[in-house]
Amino acid sequence: MTENHEHHYTDNVQEHLHQVQHLLDKQALVETVVHNQELPRDERHELLDKMLHKRHLAELSDKLEELHSADIAYILEALPIEHRLLVWNLVKADRDGEILIEVSDAVRESLIAAMSRDELREAAEQLDTDEIADLAPDLPQHVIRDVFKSLPIEEREQLRAAMSYPDDSVGALMDFNMVHVREDVTLETVSRYLRRFDELPDHTDQVFVVDRDEHFKGVLPINLIVVNEPDTEVGQLMITDVVKLHPDEKAEHAAQAFERYDLVSAPVVDEDGKLFGRVTVNVVLDYIREESDTELLNQAGLLEEEDIFASVWKSAQNRWVWLALNLATAFFASRVIGEFEQTIAQMVALATLMPIVAGIAGNSANQTTTIIIRSLALGQITQGNARRLMLKELAISGLNGLVWGGFAGLFAYFLYHSIALGVVMTAAMMLNLTLGALVGIGIPLMMQRLGRDPAIGASVLLTAITDSGGFFIFLGLATIFLI
Amino acid sequence: MTENHEHHYTDNVQEHLHQVQHLLDKQALVETVVHNQELPRDERHELLDKMLHKRHLAELSDKLEELHSADIAYILEALPIEHRLLVWNLVKADRDGEILIEVSDAVRESLIAAMSRDELREAAEQLDTDEIADLAPDLPQHVIRDVFKSLPIEEREQLRAAMSYPDDSVGALMDFNMVHVREDVTLETVSRYLRRFDELPDHTDQVFVVDRDEHFKGVLPINLIVVNEPDTEVGQLMITDVVKLHPDEKAEHAAQAFERYDLVSAPVVDEDGKLFGRVTVNVVLDYIREESDTELLNQAGLLEEEDIFASVWKSAQNRWVWLALNLATAFFASRVIGEFEQTIAQMVALATLMPIVAGIAGNSANQTTTIIIRSLALGQITQGNARRLMLKELAISGLNGLVWGGFAGLFAYFLYHSIALGVVMTAAMMLNLTLGALVGIGIPLMMQRLGRDPAIGASVLLTAITDSGGFFIFLGLATIFLI
Repeated sequence: MTENHEHHYTDNVQEHLHQVQHLLDKQALVETVVHNQELPRDERHELLDKMLHKRHLAELSDKLEELHSADIAYILEALPIEHRLLVWNLVKADRDGEILIEVSDAVRESLIAAMSRDELREAAEQLDTDEIADLAPDLPQHVIRDVFKSLPIEEREQLRAAMSYPDDSVGALMDFNMVHVREDVTLETVSRYLRRFDELPDHTDQVFVVDRDEHFKGVLPINLIVVNEPDTEVGQLMITDVVKLHPDEKAEHAAQAFERYDLVSAPVVDEDGKLFGRVTVNVVLDYIREESDTELLNQAGLLEEEDIFASVWKSAQNRWVWLALNLATAFFASRVIGEFEQTIAQMVALATLMPIVAGIAGNSANQTTTIIIRSLALGQITQGNARRLMLKELAISGLNGLVWGGFAGLFAYFLYHSIALGVVMTAAMMLNLTLGALVGIGIPLMMQRLGRDPAIGASVLLTAITDSGGFFIFLGLATIFLI
Repeated sequence: MTENHEHHYTDNVQEHLHQVQHLLDKQALVETVVHNQELPRDERHELLDKMLHKRHLAELSDKLEELHSADIAYILEALPIEHRLLVWNLVKADRDGEILIEVSDAVRESLIAAMSRDELREAAEQLDTDEIADLAPDLPQHVIRDVFKSLPIEEREQLRAAMSYPDDSVGALMDFNMVHVREDVTLETVSRYLRRFDELPDHTDQVFVVDRDEHFKGVLPINLIVVNEPDTEVGQLMITDVVKLHPDEKAEHAAQAFERYDLVSAPVVDEDGKLFGRVTVNVVLDYIREESDTELLNQAGLLEEEDIFASVWKSAQNRWVWLALNLATAFFASRVIGEFEQTIAQMVALATLMPIVAGIAGNSANQTTTIIIRSLALGQITQGNARRLMLKELAISGLNGLVWGGFAGLFAYFLYHSIALGVVMTAAMMLNLTLGALVGIGIPLMMQRLGRDPAIGASVLLTAITDSGGFFIFLGLATIFLI
């Protein structure tokens, strides 16, 4: 990624968004005036029309010119589709590639849909191979072929490699902009070599030391070049005890290494020990933010990020799987209650109390599962302590059952003046909270063992069990002891 | 933060955790054997005891010696309290400070509780002032006073400044390890100056250019020092158009700037334009990870991160506020149902169907609110488009009401052979989904306007409304049209 020293950094991108919106509104006003004219369109009017148009558009264009690509991406995301495309057309074509990389997936789709084959090819050709690979899933097949043909052989290989790694692997985070040197040269030589670059690649905090066959030997931090005497040899200064990533590793593993060891860049080494690429902290930062966003969205049952200006139809589809799943489990829970219609008919109070039993256990189970999923992600749960954790969660749910079940029992007793009902209520709460704790631990552990991501889908299953289970336990106990 | 080139980086910290656990288990075995001896403790036995002890502990100590502080922190977090303290005592005292900075808040508390006043003071004194400030909330008052007294005047000022900023401000992320130069010197001079450092501070990707009065003028990337001729003047190369942070700004604002502009470090400038400190990407990375963890935990109703080996009592307290809140809303919903006991007594089917109406609207409202909270956080919701977004969400909920309400209506009809019941079911679902959309948008917007974090507490309120509202709408419609 090339830095944009020519474009302004900004302290307040929202200010720019407002300015762009203001210009767009003025533009819209002109259009409204012009199109409402009932006069015949004589030449003078046409000219006026064009001039007015041009003025605002030119102003907008100047404004965009001075903005950083990332800020333009932000503004495009915050504009409704017709304004977004207007702004997109005003952006200089030579920045298309960079901006496409920066925008969210959902918005990228809407921009790409508005571009011709040639525009797309030109945009892609402005990018580094690792960036093209990021863009590739959203590009039409024929554009990728065009781009591929236009690349020199070495870069074709890189693109092929970068595209072959799954989204959540180190290979997908990797770029190829690394500077490498030999260990038997002096810092003087390294400095002369570096001076041949106009600018080092972004996030070059270290150069990589390789041997004749490109085997990775170590790293030489740029800072060491600066603080040491020019006649020192690279081999004397290079650091060999460094984190080496592998392209097939999980991206999350790399992210944890960056966090733990405060890295700015790290080498990626293939199975033969050859230097293959590097990962830089800016990509890791984006990865972490994206992962956490995805997790939050998935927890709420959204399949993917939404373009807030997408059509109602498109947004609704993003939410349907979740609602359908929940409806199915709600139907099931409803049939569980249905089995006890006789009991409820004899004691309507049960219908008023049963949602409490189901709900609180759902909340408590959700707490348990959140803790377990987090500990699994951090690798803190081992064979040695899994049992201990399970006992602890069961103890907590037992305690909660006593306390909150006790309250709920008192609530039932004061309302319906039946000690037996109060006791059944408390017992049902305790049992259902325990059930919640068991599945709250069991489901993520099981999913982990099956090699699936325990964070996805656990909550539907959990709620299904604490709801249906709660109704069954409470109404079942009531049928036995109260009727 | 000083780098630990002397300690090994590791590709697999879990492997080390297993080794440590294994050593601890061997150690425990020895202790068991020794303490079970019914023989009188003669000298020979005591010696054996000590030797065995010593062997495993020495092995453990060697193991810890070679590990990176961040990895020791990780291992401490994954060990139960008695083993954790055993390992903590084996760690060389001169690494205490670094490790305390690295561990999670919950675990830090347990370590600090086991340290004496002198140990704490020594640990704190190993740290930079910005790090001491991070530790300060967990330290006893008298230790902070001791440390404060031991600092030179300039650092006292720094500590006082760093401690005065709230957790979520740039001031809390800031450190003071910046290197600064004047603009009228040559790169040659800068290089000579830098060579006086044994090592530049971590994450020094640029030096800051200031005038005689320490006013910030611009930055000079280290890479430019390397690629340019030594006789070039700093003023010719320095970049003036850079992101400048202010200590009172929101930390999230800084995080977004780092993400957007791919920064490694950024200057912090006070209101007079003087260089005050800097923020580095590693701190931003930790901040982003912590924020997203906190958000996930809060969503599940956990007040804070839990030490997985904390006592049952302590963990339970972390979960009680949430359960109490949910119990209160469940009691309220229960009373809403209670108002319709007569209706349910006449038509028990209603009791089986009502959880469906409440549940699905809750899920749908949660989706809406997640989208809105996210857009608010990104600053994408402006006066201009709030209305539009609201209409869109209402349209989606209307569509969902038709589709899923329709299914639910059919479900009711097939089970109970009543068209009227099916129609009431569908109508209730549509109304409750619309109610859900209204509050799903309204609550976060309102909280934002009141200056509160819309991500906290929205979901309890939401569920309370869609539950109670759902019961009220469904049972109310049933009372009017079916009874």
